[in-house]
Amino acid sequence: MDIEQFVARSEGKWRSMRSGHSLAFQQFEEVLSEIEIKKVSPDDQEVINLVQSTPEAKGEQGISPFRMEWNAESDWEPEDPSEVSAGSCILVPVPTSSSQGLLLRSLGYAEAEQALSQYSFLSDGTFILRTQYEQSIAEERIWFVSDHVRCRSSVLRTSAGSGVLQTSFASEVRRIEA
Amino acid sequence: MDIEQFVARSEGKWRSMRSGHSLAFQQFEEVLSEIEIKKVSPDDQEVINLVQSTPEAKGEQGISPFRMEWNAESDWEPEDPSEVSAGSCILVPVPTSSSQGLLLRSLGYAEAEQALSQYSFLSDGTFILRTQYEQSIAEERIWFVSDHVRCRSSVLRTSAGSGVLQTSFASEVRRIEA
Repeated sequence: MDIEQFVARSEGKWRSMRSGHSLAFQQFEEVLSEIEIKKVSPDDQEVINLVQSTPEAKGEQGISPFRMEWNAESDWEPEDPSEVSAGSCILVPVPTSSSQGLLLRSLGYAEAEQALSQYSFLSDGTFILRTQYEQSIAEERIWFVSDHVRCRSSVLRTSAGSGVLQTSFASEVRRIEA
Repeated sequence: MDIEQFVARSEGKWRSMRSGHSLAFQQFEEVLSEIEIKKVSPDDQEVINLVQSTPEAKGEQGISPFRMEWNAESDWEPEDPSEVSAGSCILVPVPTSSSQGLLLRSLGYAEAEQALSQYSFLSDGTFILRTQYEQSIAEERIWFVSDHVRCRSSVLRTSAGSGVLQTSFASEVRRIEA
């Protein structure tokens, strides 16, 4: 699996069931949402701006940039940008080898700021994303269980120590348009 | 990571937050439970019986056999044996190489019968378990995010087709005894 294949498999509309676990308080959270992933042109001005404004990627060529839009139906929590009721961001992969690279996001997962992630693939094609935010470190994993079902987990920890703050898991089923 | 290291890291008492996703009905389920994992002797009569009653493992030597006990605090569903309010089973790994092998269970995860699984490790040490039941196929993944936090996901599909029935995700935090 390389990043182009991964983005190609991810394109489309997905219905997501997402559970959040707050470990310290043993609290559960449930969110139903719609996610749409669509490719954008490498020449898109937003893509170019994102690459140019990221020192680690400046001058590099983004591959398979895409836009992600989400629309939560329930339980949104304003403090977590991934769960704001609706939003969208641009993501730009910048490979450093066939199995790893950088992922630039116009909006982060754990904190609402531009974010720079490192991605890599495990031996079975599982996509791993590590992001250092100001206050926290996020590790996400995405793996396909079939062409139309993918799973996504995240672990959020404090950047100071090794404390794990919360985890989440989403089951995403492709919406087939009639 | 090999199976002996994996079992050694897993030993102990864990508090588990588990979310189940029923994909067809978009239903969530939440379960809090206590799990205890402890090694048992390879000479234990239950271990010997389990190996001897499994044609694929007969005559082989089990390594790091262990007992798993669970105790759910909420939301148990009698139709899913993994969520019966309390229970225990014996598990016996039978390696075929340093990174894969068979796992014998006195009680299955998806169906309440003796079960035979194939296990393997991904490049980052993630433990993968595949089990063919009479009515279904389960894939579980377990990975450590720290010495005291592990994540466990499962995907259950019909054995006839490729339909994904349900997924689950558990966040497990080690209980440190004072």
